[in-house]
Order: sequence, then structure tokens, then C-alpha cells
Amino acid sequence: MTDSPAPPANPLSWTGGADGFLTLLDQTLLPGETRYINCETVEEVWQAIKRLAVRGAPAIGIAAAYGVVLATRDQASRTACDAAIEAACDHLATSRPTAVNLFWALERMRRVAHEFDPEQLPILLAKRLLAEAQAIHQADRAQCAAIGRFGAELLAPLGKGAGILTHCNTGALATGGDGTALAAIFTLHAQGLAPRVFADETRPLLQGARLTAWELMQRGLDATLITDSMPAPLMRDGVVKAVIVGADRIAANGDAANKIGTYGLAVLARHHGVPFYIAAPSTTFDLSIASGAAIPIEQRAAEEVTEPMGVRFAPAGIKVDNPAFDVTPAELITALVTERGVIEPVSEESIGALLTEVVAA
Amino acid sequence: MTDSPAPPANPLSWTGGADGFLTLLDQTLLPGETRYINCETVEEVWQAIKRLAVRGAPAIGIAAAYGVVLATRDQASRTACDAAIEAACDHLATSRPTAVNLFWALERMRRVAHEFDPEQLPILLAKRLLAEAQAIHQADRAQCAAIGRFGAELLAPLGKGAGILTHCNTGALATGGDGTALAAIFTLHAQGLAPRVFADETRPLLQGARLTAWELMQRGLDATLITDSMPAPLMRDGVVKAVIVGADRIAANGDAANKIGTYGLAVLARHHGVPFYIAAPSTTFDLSIASGAAIPIEQRAAEEVTEPMGVRFAPAGIKVDNPAFDVTPAELITALVTERGVIEPVSEESIGALLTEVVAA
Repeated sequence: MTDSPAPPANPLSWTGGADGFLTLLDQTLLPGETRYINCETVEEVWQAIKRLAVRGAPAIGIAAAYGVVLATRDQASRTACDAAIEAACDHLATSRPTAVNLFWALERMRRVAHEFDPEQLPILLAKRLLAEAQAIHQADRAQCAAIGRFGAELLAPLGKGAGILTHCNTGALATGGDGTALAAIFTLHAQGLAPRVFADETRPLLQGARLTAWELMQRGLDATLITDSMPAPLMRDGVVKAVIVGADRIAANGDAANKIGTYGLAVLARHHGVPFYIAAPSTTFDLSIASGAAIPIEQRAAEEVTEPMGVRFAPAGIKVDNPAFDVTPAELITALVTERGVIEPVSEESIGALLTEVVAA
Repeated sequence: MTDSPAPPANPLSWTGGADGFLTLLDQTLLPGETRYINCETVEEVWQAIKRLAVRGAPAIGIAAAYGVVLATRDQASRTACDAAIEAACDHLATSRPTAVNLFWALERMRRVAHEFDPEQLPILLAKRLLAEAQAIHQADRAQCAAIGRFGAELLAPLGKGAGILTHCNTGALATGGDGTALAAIFTLHAQGLAPRVFADETRPLLQGARLTAWELMQRGLDATLITDSMPAPLMRDGVVKAVIVGADRIAANGDAANKIGTYGLAVLARHHGVPFYIAAPSTTFDLSIASGAAIPIEQRAAEEVTEPMGVRFAPAGIKVDNPAFDVTPAELITALVTERGVIEPVSEESIGALLTEVVAA
């Protein structure tokens, strides 16, 4: 046990030049096993996203961007290369429906390809795309650091040793940097404020128990694992003083899609007068949709519920409802924490102001 | 798949006369394996209650009553027999702290022993105690049926096919009859109202996924399994129109201890304007305590959270908070359903009125 941060887990990295490959940490096996997967094709990246070997909205976007680079491999002509990039963007966009960072990253890669001089060789386009994916990756790292600082500013007034609840995993494993909601907690810890962190396990896929608990322990934080049914009494008893989570897509009005269970936590927080924060980079905002009602919610396989970690415990044939996300309405969100600053109160106007202001700057 | 009810699972039965034994269905193995345990000693019953082979507040009370009968075995004198009964009552009372039915049943058995003619032989006392345990068992069966009728009356106005959420297991496996909250749902089903039942899995021990889902399927109900994090969106979307759960102890003012997660569901129900019902026999009321603040909450082993079904997925050494119960304040409970009728609104006065009224009748 140490208070000095361990090197952060690295969910994804690129090896080599434009003909290199993407290495992903297989998060489905954590914390029991640390195994890396090398992806050399678009399809391998698609599969890795689909089965959650790589997960977390920012990390999915970065992985997809690198996936587009892989589409340029062994392309003899620009026509073939351009077609392969288009097909890769279309295909990768089908891997998961909710996180908007995926579509944002693919759109950015697509635009780079479209704007690239058609007279140039495929290898030069590949290099340009790799540079773009690396820029997305690098920018996310910086965004995480900024989110961490802004989030810690919000949480610091709770005082030393305050109980903070988080849901799912929003740390180094979910992003290109130190995370979003967890980055705020890590920053608070680095500032000597020793938060007492409660990680709920986040059924069905247990990202809280497997990934967040692991990241918190690795960095020496005071971490307690609870089931998803335990936050309410901790809020009532004044133990949990704030909730901070991530998001997969935020609509123009501030409604936020995040891991299933988030909406219920927001309702519980409101009932108990506990502030409820959502931390996400600006790439998580989808200003093209007016409200959360338009966010598609991914339904996943029944077996995620009936057979956690491969052990079946529910009766055969039982019907299952397994939405991967839910939508928290803006009115239940105390503040949105972005790399550009804090949005509080949350409204279409305050969101527009912060996003436009910085674009204009 | 059939609409006709399967024979109900039988969590406990007594075989033979006063020198017989208690047979328990080992509920920790359900639904994968149906294995029965024969208990011939008080200690075996204590262990079975402690490790949740038998669970559910009413069933625990019945099992403990039968356990006291086992204390009379092979006792040569009345002095020895009386001492063994006292010791058995004391020991069984330490098996679990929250459910009051346990203490109620033990108190009843203790009183019978105290009042039994000291000149009579141990075997005659044993027969009397067995008759008492069987009376407790039989009365619970009748109470379940009455609770089912009163509960169905509350739920029927929701209309055919209404979505009803339940938590943990409150069916035939938890009682001497058809259950408490589940009995209401079974009765509704028998009346042709075809409720659409949502069973949340109830981490950490998964009584909802393992036991409730199984009972609902066995009886041909429309059952859907969800994780504990999924009820909120179902309430918001108007799918879940009522919540009905059981209780392990209800204080004089109506505050009710029940499986961890119940309090959070009550808050969510209130937020969404969904009625929240608690169904329990009058033996679950503890009028000796003024409010829920005085109900002891059992803390259970960390491994229940970190190693469900024996498979470890959380990092080694992580701290765990694992309260088995929480307390729902009376003001969040729309009505209490007992075998004596419905208490609505819930208050010290309305509770006292119903309980006293019947005692006076």
C-alpha cells in the first residue's frame, strides 16, 4: 500500500508508423488477468469495441480513430484506400450506438481523408490519418487533466476525507488520460484531500468492481466497493456527500446518457440533497439533438445479466431487460464538468455559451 | 410453459413425530441444484439460517421453532430438557439479527416450555413444542393466503398486464405458504390479471435472480429479470406501475427494515409517483421499538460482494461495505399489507389500530 500513484493503466497504444498496429488492454479480463490484444484489422477493432475489451466513451473514440488507420494497410491505389476508409468508418460506427465520441472521432477521420490531396499516395494519407488519431489521443489526455482540475475544484469544498460515490469506470481505462470523473477524484487525492471513494459495482458488467476498484487501489486511494443497491442509505446517513460520474452522450439541453443506473443515482442524490456531477470532455456533447429522448440506448445480451463472469445463476429461459445506458435529465445534474470549465446550472443556454465561447476564442 | 401453477417449492418440512427432523431446501444452490438438508440438531438449524440455506423472515421464524423441538432430543430429565430448550432459544437468536419473526417464534416456543407442567416427561413437552412449531408453520400459510388477497386488491386497479416490480424473494421459498409480496402477485395472476413482473436480481446474494425468477417461471407468470440499477427508467417510462416487497422488521411507526436496496426503490417510487407497498405478516411488526433507527442491521461477509457464486472478480484487498438490510421510513410506504388487512396511510396510529383491533376482537 502506497500513497504515490502507480503508473496508470494504458487501455490503448499504437506501435510503429502508419503500417503499425493498435494494442488494447483486454478489459473484460481485469483485474484477474492483464492481457493485451494487438489489432491489425478494422474488424479486430470493431470486435474489441463491441465486446467491451476497450470501453469508456473517450477510449472508444480513440480506438476507432486508430482503427481507421488500419483500413489503409496494403491499399494499392488511392481509390481503393479511400473506399476502405469510408467502409471502415461506416463499419466502426455500428460497433456501439450510444457514445457519441465514437461518431465524433470517425467523422473527424473521415473529414481528414476527404480533404487530403487526391493526388497523394495512400501511404501519405495513412501517415496523415495516424497523426490525426494521435492528435485525438493526445488531446483527450490533456482534456482529462483539465477535467480533473475543474472537478477537484467542485469537490474540494466538501472537505478532507469526504465520501464521494462514483459509478461504472471513468478512469485511465476509459480514456486517453487519467479519466473524467475519476480524474477529478485522483486530482483531489493528489491535493491531499484524501477522499473516501465509494465505487458501486455496476452490474451487469461490473466495471465498478473490476476496473474502478482496481484503479483506486493501484493509486492508493481509500476505496470501498458496494453493490448498486447500497448508495441510498449512504446518502441518507451523510456518508456520501457527492456523486460524480461520466457520460456517453450529452444532448444540447444537458440531458446525459451514461451507464445504466446513473439516472437512479441522480434521483437518489436529489432526494438527499447530495450534489450530482457529470464529468465529460466536450466531444461527449451532441448539440445536434435537443434532448435525451433522442439518444439511442443500446440493448445488450441477456447473458450479461444471467451469467456474470461466465457463471449462470438465473433460471434458464428467464426474460431479461438489459439496457446498457439510461438518460439523466438536465434538471437532476448539479453541474457538468468539461475540459473547458464547469457548466452550472445546466441548461441549453449555459452549455451553448461555454462551447461557443471557446470555439470563438 | 404453462399457466397452471406448479406445486410450490417447499423450503422446510418436518418429518416424523417429536423425535423427527427438519428438512430444509438448500436455497443457496437454487436454481441450479435442488438439494435438501436434514437437520437433526439445533446447531445444524443455526448454521442453515446463518448461511441462508433457509431465508426469508417468516421461514426463518418457522425453522427456528422447529429447531427448538430438536433440542428436546435424548434428554433424560425435564431439568436437562428445559435447560437445552433455553440454550437452543438463546443460540438460535444469534443466527441473524434483523428479522424479528425469528425472535417472535423463539419467544413463543420459550413461553410454551415455561408454561408446560414441570411434572410431565420430556417427551410430552417435545410433543407440545412440535405442535406449537407446526401451529406457527400452519398459521404462516394462512397468513400468506390472506396477505395475497389483500395485496391483490391493492394491485388489481392497476389493470391487466400492469408492470409490477419486486425485490429479493418473498415467495413460497421465504415463508410457510405462498409468500408475502409474491403471494399478492400470484393472487393477481390467479385472478387473470396477468401482471408483468419485474424481478431485480438483488445483489449481493441474488435472491431475485435465483429464487424469485425461478418461482415466477415455475408458476407461468410473465417475468423479466433486471439488475438492481434498472428500476428507475422503468418507473419513469410508466412500465413499472407499482412496487411491492416484503419486510424483516417493522417498527411501531411503520419504518420497515428489508433487503438492502429497498430504501432506494422507495425513494425512486416516490420520485416517480409509483405506489410502494410492503407486505408482511403481523409477526414482522416489532411494536417494542419506536422507529427504524433502533433496528439492528446485519453486516455480512465481504466475499458475498467480491465473489458471487464463488467467482472472484473484484481486486484482492478491496474494502467492502455489505449491510444485508436497509430501513425505509414510513412516509415512503404507500401501504402496509398484512394478513389482518391493509394499513394506509402508514402511521403509529393506523398500525396500532389494526393490530389492537384484531387482538381485541
